[in-house]
Amino acid sequence: MTDLPSKIHIKEEGPREGFQIESADIRTADKIALIDALSQTGLKHIQIVSFVNPKRVPGMADAAEVVAGIMPVPGVQYAGLWLNQQGFLRALDTGRLYMAGKLTLYASQAFLMRNQNRTPEQQLAAQPDLIRLYQANGVSTSTGFVTAAFGCNFEGDVNPSYVVQLVGEMRCIAAEQGETLKVIGLGDTMAWATPEKIKKVVGAVRDANPDLAISLHLHDTRGMGLANAYAGLQMGVTHFDAAVAGLGGCPFAKHAGAAGNVCTEDLVLMCEEMGIDTGVDLEALIECATLAETIVKHPLPGKAKSGGSLAALRRARTAASA
Amino acid sequence: MTDLPSKIHIKEEGPREGFQIESADIRTADKIALIDALSQTGLKHIQIVSFVNPKRVPGMADAAEVVAGIMPVPGVQYAGLWLNQQGFLRALDTGRLYMAGKLTLYASQAFLMRNQNRTPEQQLAAQPDLIRLYQANGVSTSTGFVTAAFGCNFEGDVNPSYVVQLVGEMRCIAAEQGETLKVIGLGDTMAWATPEKIKKVVGAVRDANPDLAISLHLHDTRGMGLANAYAGLQMGVTHFDAAVAGLGGCPFAKHAGAAGNVCTEDLVLMCEEMGIDTGVDLEALIECATLAETIVKHPLPGKAKSGGSLAALRRARTAASA
Repeated sequence: MTDLPSKIHIKEEGPREGFQIESADIRTADKIALIDALSQTGLKHIQIVSFVNPKRVPGMADAAEVVAGIMPVPGVQYAGLWLNQQGFLRALDTGRLYMAGKLTLYASQAFLMRNQNRTPEQQLAAQPDLIRLYQANGVSTSTGFVTAAFGCNFEGDVNPSYVVQLVGEMRCIAAEQGETLKVIGLGDTMAWATPEKIKKVVGAVRDANPDLAISLHLHDTRGMGLANAYAGLQMGVTHFDAAVAGLGGCPFAKHAGAAGNVCTEDLVLMCEEMGIDTGVDLEALIECATLAETIVKHPLPGKAKSGGSLAALRRARTAASA
Repeated sequence: MTDLPSKIHIKEEGPREGFQIESADIRTADKIALIDALSQTGLKHIQIVSFVNPKRVPGMADAAEVVAGIMPVPGVQYAGLWLNQQGFLRALDTGRLYMAGKLTLYASQAFLMRNQNRTPEQQLAAQPDLIRLYQANGVSTSTGFVTAAFGCNFEGDVNPSYVVQLVGEMRCIAAEQGETLKVIGLGDTMAWATPEKIKKVVGAVRDANPDLAISLHLHDTRGMGLANAYAGLQMGVTHFDAAVAGLGGCPFAKHAGAAGNVCTEDLVLMCEEMGIDTGVDLEALIECATLAETIVKHPLPGKAKSGGSLAALRRARTAASA
């Protein structure tokens, strides 16, 4: 058999990914209920809100209330997302979130210009200030993330060697500010990855950075999320972002890039069946996925919540024959 | 990179898988329209109907009319499914179908008893008559299929060595009747496969039968359809069943085993992006998937029809920069 990792770490991003794209009329109490349920599954890191402009993302207007309302479970990191200094300070102000600095570089220059109106040089130049802002607030930076690392709707294919270059630049910038990157996240932001492309890019990044852990952030827009995760596992990747029930994106918007992250319970099912420890109680997570669907009031793409776990079927058989 | 096949063969089963499970009020003309559209995509084998009891499967009551109504494209095999002598003779009577005998053995004894009220011995004993029926009608038998080859809701895990045993028995039975099996199909009927299980079972069957082609029939009930197909490709599998738009199963029935086959256009997208020739025009196939969704009047699970192909995005970029 192939040499898969014995254990992986999952960053649950469903609440943040989901509620920022769903209609804004989801009750704060429902968001809190889902987060509290997720806290009981064994997940150790849950990204629960984003601190963004409530005019642009009305679903996140109640971010601070959500953070204030959860019942934190010891050992679980609750995280937020921010895109600028103001958002970072709002996250910090909650006093309840796991705060970690992250550097982000775009592997697509076209997407960078379109999204942030910046050149690659301007993007690089902005990073040291970010690290210093974090440091001034007692927050260290140990993750670097590459957006659109596998391709981009606006730029097309991305050269793996450019991804490697960006990772090197992030490491240097961090080091110059006295920080040490430990994890490199590769984002398949617009779902251009195939399993073979995962192998190519992960292989190139790892060859140049054998001392760093690699994390994959995989969108399922073209249905290859789990296949890409499997290719990542074959390359020894041990960190995955995922979203319960496949929350995020919008199943009804027919634009490219519409789907959410790879579904957490589907990923957990695949890993556990292959002997890879996720630390997650699959049955409890499936209940969370069903709860998420109830809350958003429309079908969500995850499969395990309707297909069911194999472990449950095995237990039912054992019980019947006992 | 891994040693993937340069070309695969896809058996499109969407019309048969889909229309037998959808509500019976789909117009015959719509079924024909979908089949005729699929005929223009480059697919070389399309299973279009099943000849089963119309009282049990009302959606297939018009099977003969569908067969009579299509406009066959030269080079495309149009096939039907049957479960007994009566169904076989109905298929033969159409005079328009590609007729091929297939042996089927169940790897799950519990499922065999439940579904057919037979023991493994009775199952084996029934095969020679089937081959002779085919031969008496000028139809040869070159495929053997193992149902529930990766596990079963009623039996649990299936031992790969039992699958190997069944394949050996089918080869012997065929040889005794003067037939030669060339393809072995492995069915993940109830979606118990994981990528690693695919490797294990395919590896075991191939080691014992290096002269046979292996075909995979993968249901997507637990979301691992494409991941399992990728594992199959890594094992050199060159034949896949698939269903346009992911037709089949029932996305609204919350019972285990609910989902259809792996989605054809998602499989084609993955393969073509990895340099594996499918012979299929992806854009034309995506149009068929959209047509299928229009016909059944509810969302179908395939992703590429909303996510879009990468080739189209590359072309749009080239056109914009020209």
